[in-house]
Amino acid sequence: MEYLSVTNAQQCILECVHKLDTESVGLEQSLGRVLAEDVRANRDLPPYDVSAMDGYAVRSADLANIPATLQVIEDIRAGDMPGKTVHAGQCARIMTGAPVPQGADAVIRVEDTLASPDNLVQINVAVIPGNDIRLRGEGMRNGDVVLTTGTEITPGVTGVLATVKQSQVQVYRRPRVAILSTGNELEDMDDPVDPNKIPNSNSYALMAQVQALGIEPDLLGIARDDPVELEEYLLRGLRFDVLLVSGGTSVGVHDYVRPTVEALGVQMKFWRVAMKPGHPVAFGVLQQCAASTAFVFGLPGNPVSSMVCFEQFVAPALRRMMGHERLFRRTIAARLTHNVKHQPGRTEFVRVTLAKNEDGYAATSTGAQGSGMLLSMARADGLLVVPAESTGLVAGEQVAVQLLDGTVFQEGSEFRV
Amino acid sequence: MEYLSVTNAQQCILECVHKLDTESVGLEQSLGRVLAEDVRANRDLPPYDVSAMDGYAVRSADLANIPATLQVIEDIRAGDMPGKTVHAGQCARIMTGAPVPQGADAVIRVEDTLASPDNLVQINVAVIPGNDIRLRGEGMRNGDVVLTTGTEITPGVTGVLATVKQSQVQVYRRPRVAILSTGNELEDMDDPVDPNKIPNSNSYALMAQVQALGIEPDLLGIARDDPVELEEYLLRGLRFDVLLVSGGTSVGVHDYVRPTVEALGVQMKFWRVAMKPGHPVAFGVLQQCAASTAFVFGLPGNPVSSMVCFEQFVAPALRRMMGHERLFRRTIAARLTHNVKHQPGRTEFVRVTLAKNEDGYAATSTGAQGSGMLLSMARADGLLVVPAESTGLVAGEQVAVQLLDGTVFQEGSEFRV
Repeated sequence: MEYLSVTNAQQCILECVHKLDTESVGLEQSLGRVLAEDVRANRDLPPYDVSAMDGYAVRSADLANIPATLQVIEDIRAGDMPGKTVHAGQCARIMTGAPVPQGADAVIRVEDTLASPDNLVQINVAVIPGNDIRLRGEGMRNGDVVLTTGTEITPGVTGVLATVKQSQVQVYRRPRVAILSTGNELEDMDDPVDPNKIPNSNSYALMAQVQALGIEPDLLGIARDDPVELEEYLLRGLRFDVLLVSGGTSVGVHDYVRPTVEALGVQMKFWRVAMKPGHPVAFGVLQQCAASTAFVFGLPGNPVSSMVCFEQFVAPALRRMMGHERLFRRTIAARLTHNVKHQPGRTEFVRVTLAKNEDGYAATSTGAQGSGMLLSMARADGLLVVPAESTGLVAGEQVAVQLLDGTVFQEGSEFRV
Repeated sequence: MEYLSVTNAQQCILECVHKLDTESVGLEQSLGRVLAEDVRANRDLPPYDVSAMDGYAVRSADLANIPATLQVIEDIRAGDMPGKTVHAGQCARIMTGAPVPQGADAVIRVEDTLASPDNLVQINVAVIPGNDIRLRGEGMRNGDVVLTTGTEITPGVTGVLATVKQSQVQVYRRPRVAILSTGNELEDMDDPVDPNKIPNSNSYALMAQVQALGIEPDLLGIARDDPVELEEYLLRGLRFDVLLVSGGTSVGVHDYVRPTVEALGVQMKFWRVAMKPGHPVAFGVLQQCAASTAFVFGLPGNPVSSMVCFEQFVAPALRRMMGHERLFRRTIAARLTHNVKHQPGRTEFVRVTLAKNEDGYAATSTGAQGSGMLLSMARADGLLVVPAESTGLVAGEQVAVQLLDGTVFQEGSEFRV
């Protein structure tokens, strides 16, 4: 079988993976989920013309000559209904969000006025009709679709959902994800330290990657290199929507994973991708019945390779299952601070840190890129993508960097670019 | 009192707000938290020289003339300890992660070999000593500090913590946050729809903004415009580390919030910032005792203003309390697709959508920027920052855009820039 390109492998996965069914969740639990229904406004907002400022509701025609002194006939607070009509020479004191009274056609903010005794106020500016008034229905109109299926629930969307009083929302279900590590050399978290063993970091790094997508995975533990034990673990894992198996997918004679999953009916779509780190990465589908499909990702045993493959292949699949349209890690442009060697053939992902300067972002390798160098993954802000056909990148060249977790915020406010 | 600039207001807040105390949490619950301890390696990793490939452990000197045929004396799997020494003319079949046996000084990957009968293998390439061997301690050295206090726990960090078997980690505590809305005009989620009222969206949008930072806030509900009721609510809220009050901080005569919180002992640091939307934003400190300080943010009643102020002022404060060093929303450079009018004086935050093109990002206003336009906040990818002294921006100009939630992922993989 040919090595697939990263892009073709991603396409292959996304052709197999679809949105899951839907469920109803409380608004308080819905952040980050994806709407599975259109949402309509249940009233006009604002429900009447309201003041956009604290100030005075006036007749703009009264302000032909300024300063002008007007009589204050009423105090209108947000939540009040005005009781009087504003006639010539009159105005009403009004709060932000309060209804504009009959007769008034503009609002003057309090900063542009001078209160006087005897319920008089001096207005120091002229205005056009409509000034600082928010019109009925300006925010949303009763019956209009305000949010559509497929919308990710961000805080702004939560605000809109609260506005239309959706205390429950219909969203796409999250996949159930199982994580299995394989290998005789692995030592589990609760085992005593054995200097000849390798700690099982992959299960936990994958757990955190899955958690970062808003999914709480099940850790199945470690399957030893024994076909019977492995089959038992795989059978458990295939009851989930998605099974991540780390280790055991390379071409070595002791790798049982591939023959065992195939014997269990999993149709392997690919097991080699032209990438570095991480080329022994596999993807398969188990069609259990019309309503139930399990997806298996075979990830490399090397910790960094496993994490890089997760970001390229597993994260987009999980996000598609949850109904997202934005599936891939955001990439930004950065300038390389040094040369990067590369031999054409495989897409390479180089762990880099990012620094901002007046030109934008500068990307610098975290150092040695061996696939066992998990520390460098912990330090990385992103993954520099070296195209498969590149013959090497040079200092100063503009490159694409995939942003990793931990980069949503930055140290300074940096309002300038 | 002068209007503070956004940057000065941020500085004022960050001078008052410090890291909270620490607590121990399970590794499974630690994602996104900040380490409050240095973490050291508890062994060398790898614990011995290991193979980086599936292949054959050889003596490089044996490959002076290739192809060379070697005798396979042993099979070494990950987790095995080699039993034999590789002598001249010999090699051992070896798996990725398995210990390199005595006598061997390089590994040849299986793809560059041809297995023969009688435990012989033909090696088709020559290599230098050390080829495809990961040296003992190359990943981490026993006793070395591998993670320092202040490190945000990303999936890569989780992997390192699992590697050193930290099933519990010491992290900074998360602040307890209370959210209070004020106003007679507000209708709560469970109230029947009253066409003359305004739904309380702010509590829920703020809830989601707090949740997006990894904190589960308490919603205190709605305090009506009554000094006694307001005081009761504020007293409850001041028992939290942070109290967010939306509405009631403007200069209108009916605003009770400021005098009431001041009467409760809160020292107001500012109540005006030169920004748009959102200038009635206040910040105060209640020093209750040496060990207990409550911070109060007075946020505008307008939904968009409230959300924008949260991102500029509250989010950095909450993140500092949790021990983060990256406090501010990430900004990227984008080109404007249209002119933006601006009168010097206030920093303006314009809701924009972002699109990628061959030049990088293009920013386009979501349309009307009225502060009641919550729908435009739901649609926005970011906030374009218009500097206070700007006299307007023109199409094609490069601007800074703060990325909002929902922008961590993008639609295409976009490996090219």
